[in-house]
Amino acid sequence: MRLTACGEAKARIKTLIKSKAETLLMRGPESIEHFFSPQTVAVIGASDHKGSIGHTIFENMKKAQIKALFPVNPKHATIQGIRAYPTVRETSGQIDLAVIVVPSHAVPSTLEECMQHKVKAVIIVSAGFSETGERDNTRKISELIGKYPSTRVMGPNCVGVLNSHNKVDTTFFERSRMKEPKKGTLSFISQSGALGSMILDWIATQQFGINKFASYGNAMDVDESDLLEYFGRDKNTKVIAMYLEGAKEGRKFYETAKKISRKKPIIVLKGGRHDETSMATASHTGSMAGASKVYDAAFKQAGIIEADDILDLFSIAKMLEREPLPKGNRVQIITNGGGFGIVTADQMLMNGLALAKISHQTAARLYKQMPTATISNPMDLIGDADVERYLNAIKAAHNDQNVDIIVVLVLFNLPSLELGKLMGLAKPHGKITKPIMVIAIGSEFTQKYLEKMEHEGFTTFNYPSIVAKALKEVVAYSEYLKKN
Amino acid sequence: MRLTACGEAKARIKTLIKSKAETLLMRGPESIEHFFSPQTVAVIGASDHKGSIGHTIFENMKKAQIKALFPVNPKHATIQGIRAYPTVRETSGQIDLAVIVVPSHAVPSTLEECMQHKVKAVIIVSAGFSETGERDNTRKISELIGKYPSTRVMGPNCVGVLNSHNKVDTTFFERSRMKEPKKGTLSFISQSGALGSMILDWIATQQFGINKFASYGNAMDVDESDLLEYFGRDKNTKVIAMYLEGAKEGRKFYETAKKISRKKPIIVLKGGRHDETSMATASHTGSMAGASKVYDAAFKQAGIIEADDILDLFSIAKMLEREPLPKGNRVQIITNGGGFGIVTADQMLMNGLALAKISHQTAARLYKQMPTATISNPMDLIGDADVERYLNAIKAAHNDQNVDIIVVLVLFNLPSLELGKLMGLAKPHGKITKPIMVIAIGSEFTQKYLEKMEHEGFTTFNYPSIVAKALKEVVAYSEYLKKN
Repeated sequence: MRLTACGEAKARIKTLIKSKAETLLMRGPESIEHFFSPQTVAVIGASDHKGSIGHTIFENMKKAQIKALFPVNPKHATIQGIRAYPTVRETSGQIDLAVIVVPSHAVPSTLEECMQHKVKAVIIVSAGFSETGERDNTRKISELIGKYPSTRVMGPNCVGVLNSHNKVDTTFFERSRMKEPKKGTLSFISQSGALGSMILDWIATQQFGINKFASYGNAMDVDESDLLEYFGRDKNTKVIAMYLEGAKEGRKFYETAKKISRKKPIIVLKGGRHDETSMATASHTGSMAGASKVYDAAFKQAGIIEADDILDLFSIAKMLEREPLPKGNRVQIITNGGGFGIVTADQMLMNGLALAKISHQTAARLYKQMPTATISNPMDLIGDADVERYLNAIKAAHNDQNVDIIVVLVLFNLPSLELGKLMGLAKPHGKITKPIMVIAIGSEFTQKYLEKMEHEGFTTFNYPSIVAKALKEVVAYSEYLKKN
Repeated sequence: MRLTACGEAKARIKTLIKSKAETLLMRGPESIEHFFSPQTVAVIGASDHKGSIGHTIFENMKKAQIKALFPVNPKHATIQGIRAYPTVRETSGQIDLAVIVVPSHAVPSTLEECMQHKVKAVIIVSAGFSETGERDNTRKISELIGKYPSTRVMGPNCVGVLNSHNKVDTTFFERSRMKEPKKGTLSFISQSGALGSMILDWIATQQFGINKFASYGNAMDVDESDLLEYFGRDKNTKVIAMYLEGAKEGRKFYETAKKISRKKPIIVLKGGRHDETSMATASHTGSMAGASKVYDAAFKQAGIIEADDILDLFSIAKMLEREPLPKGNRVQIITNGGGFGIVTADQMLMNGLALAKISHQTAARLYKQMPTATISNPMDLIGDADVERYLNAIKAAHNDQNVDIIVVLVLFNLPSLELGKLMGLAKPHGKITKPIMVIAIGSEFTQKYLEKMEHEGFTTFNYPSIVAKALKEVVAYSEYLKKN
């Protein structure tokens, strides 16, 4: 009896372990992969009607590097010239990802069909659920998620995903109105689809790129923590940026962020930071933004970098994606315009950074190389500075142990700056261990040369205040890593 | 005797009054006009050597709408194909403006020649005086200014002036590297020439223009207060922007600003706001920036709008140049993207602005016109908003007495926004009494439509944080005017 009982218990434990392992496998970070790297995709609600969401998503998905794409639409035999299926059941074989773009009342039945068909991941683009106060269909979706745990669900009320590597793209913004972001190592999670897409479009104008993007809407199943966990493990992701109105499960998000921030920087722009705006988030993504102070404190403890605004979110992301982390807060400013240097130094000091004091040896060497320059901080190479002078100054600052961060200001419109040689203003050879930021303000000519400097490997910006604000956060993150 | 004494006293008083009047006429705001609207100009140190300052200034001045331009250079018979004169004495007739671009040691004698020749205004571009610690030539210039009060002197160590109306331009930046700013009603005073020119180039990329620009360098005669007084009276100047490191005479500047700020907004970016950067200004324009707190307090009392950074300086200037002053701080946000609205509302609240609460009547009317929209603040016209919905919302907010400022957010890349009709999104007809700001973020497509909206009369920006910061200052100025 004892033996038998023991055997039974063992068997039960074994089953339990197996089921836990299965659940982990089924609903762990690996399950999120199906959203980004599916081999077979069905677009349910694919349409021939130009300008409709069902049309745009299907059209965009045709460019994806996948094995098979199925339009599902019971009213048409073909969609955009491709054979259509009345339901997902009729499509052949395993579907990795289904995108649902049908009227809200039809979402529960469509979702159940997908689940019965063992679709691995479903993105519900359709809106009209908890964010509008709707209850009936919302409850049905919730029950289905509980009943079929092996299908992961993103949404509803979301734009889904974008993977710059295989062109899997369920966002439904017209490509003619947007620029495609470059491939990069930044992954971006946005609770708001529209805001997310707007930012993707903006990033496309910048010299850094996107790895993956996800907008998860009402977060009935897949939430910010799942995505954070996934990007934390994703080898192609170096930096994680987020737009977050309210975390679905605060504790889960905190724990996940705390674990991941040690390996990769997480930058969050929090929407709804005031009582008045927190109310507005309820009607936007159906989430309550929650007390701002609680979030602030949790973000700090979890090592999350909090951005003030959209502009800051991506200035910080760009800096972290491109440059090494600074070891401290001592900034050396190098300029060919005195006033520009002073204004920039003011910004650095206003943001709690320090002006570096280079060693006497470095100063003496620079004085010899450029007797007319003001070897101080700002280091003013003066109006007739050439590329040589810049190079010497950057190298010296990079080698000086009293400098943590180098900020290079360039007035490109000074006649003495020989543009033929400008590209010689490359980063010093060898390993770069300190962040070097270039700032210039101006019209087309200046922007063109800034772009050229980006190609040479420099990280460039347009305004001192933006750089100073971003550096403040990056330095604080560097300090956090030292202590945690 | 008494009568004679009385007569003598009267005569003396008369002489005194006459001399005071003459001095006022000679050295009052009218005397500054010669810098901006000369009929005859001499460039002393005009050169054939491309890339040199003497070459650039003379080349630029050839485009000016003036009666006569004289190159002065003792070594050449012609300069850029035009007959040259060995000294200013040999030029024929009255010279209104002389620009001196000779080595620093030759400046005092050249200046004296101009003064003896009764040149009305002299710009000394040459550097190498008090800003480098030089004493001898600095003293000589100072003595000459005292000896010949009827010649006004700008500089040394400056880039001089630019007048967008008659193309008088002594700034020596290569035109091929810069964009020419449009004509406008903003006048800009910069203690730093390089910073000033850089900003001019940046303004050229914006949809608002420049009236006049002046960089006055070491301010040995003409200083910031003289220029401020002049622009205060100048009919073509609506808004005055300044980059200031240190006022030459604090009291004079304060009194002048206090008087003018009641008529025209004055926005100042103060360089050297910290002990460390204040030191740097000494070696830049030879001025001590002075205690930051003293300046802050004086600026506030004088009704000066203080800008935080270069970006803020011109966001505030653009707003004031283009839009009516707000009567209060209540902002109505109108958007077609929920997240964008929330982020913008957060920025407004962070900057001490209030979210307007439109009246029940306005809300009821809007609900009828657009039942799917969220009639709140932010007012979310939702993703399928068309031009009609925007127009209705803007009109309603403009007519509602609970709204002081309207901020319109547009996601141009939403397919439902019919672009053919987009230009119908013009400002409501009739007199616009409230500032209306449009914000959009994105790549070329968005920028192109923002530009089109500028042509329709809207004032546009790219980032909520920039608008919120600028609005904060503009509202404070409006409050100041109510109290002063």
